[in-house]
Amino acid sequence: MLVTDLIRRKRDGVELQRNEIEFLVNGYTRDEIPDYQMSAWLMAVLLRGMTRAELAALTETMLNSGQVLDFSELPAAKIDKHSTGGVGDKTSLIIAPIVAAAGLYVPMISGRGLGHTGGTLDKLESIPGFNVNLSVADFRRVLAECGAGLIGQTAEIAPADKKLYALRDVTGTVESPYLICASIMSKKLAEGIDVLVLDVKTGSGAFMKSEKDAVILAELMVETGQRLGKRVSALITDMDQPLGHAVGNALEVAECIDVLNGHGPDDLRELSLVLSASMFLLGRRVRSVAEGRGLAEEMIASGKAREKFREVIRLQGGNAAVIDDHGLLPQAKQKAEIKSPASGFVTAIMCEQIGTAGVLLGGGRARKEESVDPAVGIIVHKKVGDSVSAGEALCTVHYNSAERLASATPLIEKSYTIAAAVPLQKRPLVHRVIGDE
Amino acid sequence: MLVTDLIRRKRDGVELQRNEIEFLVNGYTRDEIPDYQMSAWLMAVLLRGMTRAELAALTETMLNSGQVLDFSELPAAKIDKHSTGGVGDKTSLIIAPIVAAAGLYVPMISGRGLGHTGGTLDKLESIPGFNVNLSVADFRRVLAECGAGLIGQTAEIAPADKKLYALRDVTGTVESPYLICASIMSKKLAEGIDVLVLDVKTGSGAFMKSEKDAVILAELMVETGQRLGKRVSALITDMDQPLGHAVGNALEVAECIDVLNGHGPDDLRELSLVLSASMFLLGRRVRSVAEGRGLAEEMIASGKAREKFREVIRLQGGNAAVIDDHGLLPQAKQKAEIKSPASGFVTAIMCEQIGTAGVLLGGGRARKEESVDPAVGIIVHKKVGDSVSAGEALCTVHYNSAERLASATPLIEKSYTIAAAVPLQKRPLVHRVIGDE
Repeated sequence: MLVTDLIRRKRDGVELQRNEIEFLVNGYTRDEIPDYQMSAWLMAVLLRGMTRAELAALTETMLNSGQVLDFSELPAAKIDKHSTGGVGDKTSLIIAPIVAAAGLYVPMISGRGLGHTGGTLDKLESIPGFNVNLSVADFRRVLAECGAGLIGQTAEIAPADKKLYALRDVTGTVESPYLICASIMSKKLAEGIDVLVLDVKTGSGAFMKSEKDAVILAELMVETGQRLGKRVSALITDMDQPLGHAVGNALEVAECIDVLNGHGPDDLRELSLVLSASMFLLGRRVRSVAEGRGLAEEMIASGKAREKFREVIRLQGGNAAVIDDHGLLPQAKQKAEIKSPASGFVTAIMCEQIGTAGVLLGGGRARKEESVDPAVGIIVHKKVGDSVSAGEALCTVHYNSAERLASATPLIEKSYTIAAAVPLQKRPLVHRVIGDE
Repeated sequence: MLVTDLIRRKRDGVELQRNEIEFLVNGYTRDEIPDYQMSAWLMAVLLRGMTRAELAALTETMLNSGQVLDFSELPAAKIDKHSTGGVGDKTSLIIAPIVAAAGLYVPMISGRGLGHTGGTLDKLESIPGFNVNLSVADFRRVLAECGAGLIGQTAEIAPADKKLYALRDVTGTVESPYLICASIMSKKLAEGIDVLVLDVKTGSGAFMKSEKDAVILAELMVETGQRLGKRVSALITDMDQPLGHAVGNALEVAECIDVLNGHGPDDLRELSLVLSASMFLLGRRVRSVAEGRGLAEEMIASGKAREKFREVIRLQGGNAAVIDDHGLLPQAKQKAEIKSPASGFVTAIMCEQIGTAGVLLGGGRARKEESVDPAVGIIVHKKVGDSVSAGEALCTVHYNSAERLASATPLIEKSYTIAAAVPLQKRPLVHRVIGDE
């Protein structure tokens, strides 16, 4: 088999066979195929697309390039949720406890912040002592004991994805929905799950700004997961403004604890319930979405989900007392209000700017090797549709450096549109549902 | 300037600016941009195409990556002809003497055989003693003295093309007409010429099998040359069967001498006259194609072109006595006839197969480092439209190895189609003319 032939055939729109894709991906992972051939192939894939069979073969080859976890000894469904990333998108910390509290298993392998979006690992690490770097053996023990575990990707999982992603990052081949799908699904399916619920974000704070692109990616991921024998559904959900009020690692953890205590922002609570309901339904724990939603509400109302989160924190080495006292989470030294320049209604928030402001405050990374400041962030008081008076606070910024505040403030100010009239139509929280039921 | 941005913009169909293309090509030539980024960009170019301005910028950057010869001291037009490659395509050895005999200068930098096609350098080297590796100073002296010089590419000419071509060869990015155009034109315009006549081949023995693809490439090359200030025209000419009768290095030299002596095959003589006429016209030596053709005929009839070839051979160290005695050229030890299996008419010859058979006999290279056997080759007796009797010779193979003969013979046999009826329409020798007049 000649690499150049495979590149040319992909370039000319010919479908590659499974063994040809295995030859390429495995050869590349073993350093037998050079970067320059793989990048030409990736560009051909980006511009030509893939058939569903090619995509399934690519995903499965990447999945099998490393360790695939097996939790078949656990006596209930293994189930995870994955979000494509957003601003203030913190549902994992709410959903994992809810679903585990109802007797299912959530072996969640998460990522760090990427670009303007936050990452579950960074949020968890704002809890003093919380260890996201468990060995597989420890991960297995935590899961078996409490039903949920939240860790970072290990070097053993999908090494082909790690190598391909690094190449895509420097060759303009990140944005292909096919390559994004294979990257996400190969990592998620290595978790040894039966069920996956995908939260595909769309809007100004998402990677897929248009609903059309979000739907394309969602459909690819659902079909690919199904072809690999999993039950999968995808919710297209709104990321045109931050989810909840808190943007920033410790601030978001506190907000999650509020929701688990039966409080917290409506949109965050609602999305957490909807996603949990889908997970219960696909995990065969309930027979309808409505029943799933009821079960999720019950897990919150009874305090079981909150206690499950306490247990997870404790088992992963964190200070579980944060559940009862937000003050034990890292606190920024100073606060500043961003005030509205006019009276009227918030008609739009450029959500990516808010995320970028959070990164500039130190809550995310401009370069991979940087560390994050867990305490800083933004509390978004005014969201789309809210009325506001001139001089009233739109946001409160929690900061540790005046210089960083100065760079973040204009971004936040410019992200708001204040108009005389209330916006005509509110965007729904869930735009569409795709996949298994 | 970020390489990844330039790759992404090309990928998305955005036009790159001249300074951006210079940044990419010069950075790559200086080893500052890695292969894997360049190959992704090349694939994006192949699939997205280029604007004429981008193509001119790419060609000029590659041209200026090395030495650009300057023969402005020579007192008449500097003019060259370039063929995209074919089988039995030997017109350079006839045209350079014709044009130089009429007082113009032909600084011809040629290539070796590529794939199934022959190369001018390999043909010239079958003349005992002929040296194609002149220094630029010697090339200049030969040119000044006799008006024509024929050498190989030096390392100093268009090094960007050399590096890019090697990368394209292993990344499935050879076939782009834009990249082919930039590669050809950057090398040709480094010759310091005022005028270029392109012989763009089409048919079963050409790289561009379809006339459509040949026309696309021809138009790109003509416009690019014009943008860089040269007078350029392109003839789309037929390569659906070998040109002339001889395929093989020494055999082709002998056939060229025949034409210069006023004999030789009609098609070879005709194409040589037509191309010479275009060169005379664009070189302002004559006022019409008809006048140019008359001048070319006169150069042959008077023996001036033949004597010019003798002079070139002598000045480049070759044994000029081959002009008077073909027997001084290398001779194969044995000959074999390929006989027609049926009576009828030759309706088609798969021309690439004939070229490949010539390579298999040893007349070309399967790998770059191989040397060629100057003596071997094929004399094609029967061409399209000719009548043939069963058992009559279609070709005579000149060979030095029975094993090589055995591998070449089936290819030649299979390349012929013999039918009861003569083909309805003969393909014209010149399909179209594009460009300056």
